[in-house]
Amino acid sequence: MKVLLVGASGIIGRGIDAELSQRHEIIRASRSSGDVNVDLIDIASIRAMFAKVGKVDAVVSATGKVHFGDFSEMDDDKYRIGINDKLMGQVNLVLVGRDHVADNASFTLTTGILSKDPIRYGSSASMVNGAIESFVRAAAIEMKPGLRINAVSPGVILEAMEGYAPYFRGHAPVPASRAALGYAKSVEGLQTGQVFEIF
Amino acid sequence: MKVLLVGASGIIGRGIDAELSQRHEIIRASRSSGDVNVDLIDIASIRAMFAKVGKVDAVVSATGKVHFGDFSEMDDDKYRIGINDKLMGQVNLVLVGRDHVADNASFTLTTGILSKDPIRYGSSASMVNGAIESFVRAAAIEMKPGLRINAVSPGVILEAMEGYAPYFRGHAPVPASRAALGYAKSVEGLQTGQVFEIF
Repeated sequence: MKVLLVGASGIIGRGIDAELSQRHEIIRASRSSGDVNVDLIDIASIRAMFAKVGKVDAVVSATGKVHFGDFSEMDDDKYRIGINDKLMGQVNLVLVGRDHVADNASFTLTTGILSKDPIRYGSSASMVNGAIESFVRAAAIEMKPGLRINAVSPGVILEAMEGYAPYFRGHAPVPASRAALGYAKSVEGLQTGQVFEIF
Repeated sequence: MKVLLVGASGIIGRGIDAELSQRHEIIRASRSSGDVNVDLIDIASIRAMFAKVGKVDAVVSATGKVHFGDFSEMDDDKYRIGINDKLMGQVNLVLVGRDHVADNASFTLTTGILSKDPIRYGSSASMVNGAIESFVRAAAIEMKPGLRINAVSPGVILEAMEGYAPYFRGHAPVPASRAALGYAKSVEGLQTGQVFEIF
């Protein structure tokens, strides 16, 4: 398969790359490195990416920014960061990509454990993750027959614990290589409308 | 208790009013009727409402618009309608309201069954409902001690079935008076961070 991996240079992205490149051709997309550059908050940039890479069999997104901050200081603007980036960035990747992918292609988005298991400073991450999970369930049943969409919801990533540990006490870290299995299940399996939780 | 009911003129709002007004003072807010006018997509309008009504013991929201449309025709703009209105309208009601409510006040937002049980044309409603549910779980643990927040997730409302029936085949309609019990549980009980599903 030809797999477009958005966020290829990130911690999870590199884990997915190591897993899927054993069996598939990977086209690596990132904001400023890889085979093709893309900024998911810019729809024109998404269109340019698909025009450049041609038809792919799978689109995998392992990217998306949200603002972490004390709830007492969260305001409309701070929630919009995650809405524009991790939520609508990934949604627009699907909305643009669905017209450019091969028959029977899959989309795999990234959410995370905070949708169900909230932490201090994480209200925007929770909101956005919950939105992605419900979007995936709904989009799956209305997509053009043959196309599939899933999300992967990993716990806190082991390789990111240096910065994240103080906020994720009690959370069992998940190695990126293990999170990558959720993406492989989505890309190489046949399920759709699922949220694969990886603990 | 003094209860600020936003969306008081809607089908669910009238059911909540009938339930809660038996025991509490209701301040009815709507876009263009009731005791005070408010448009939740306008933060200044939310501020003006709280300045007018003074301290309340409970804020209940039973409002929020989303765009229903075939997934193949959904685009960024159409998803933004629900994000700006049902999602961030209700979130901003909390963000502004938290500084104007009485100690131990509660916030109760409205989500809906589509977060888990999607229908044709409902991908925006699903997205927004999932976002609200995860936001409520996260906000509850970070709010100022004493404050509470929950969401009520009703099935399709019986009194709205004339228009909605074709999209909700197989869904058991819930009378507004029954949905109203979820709001009473949130306002008059002590739970927080919960999504009360009403079938």
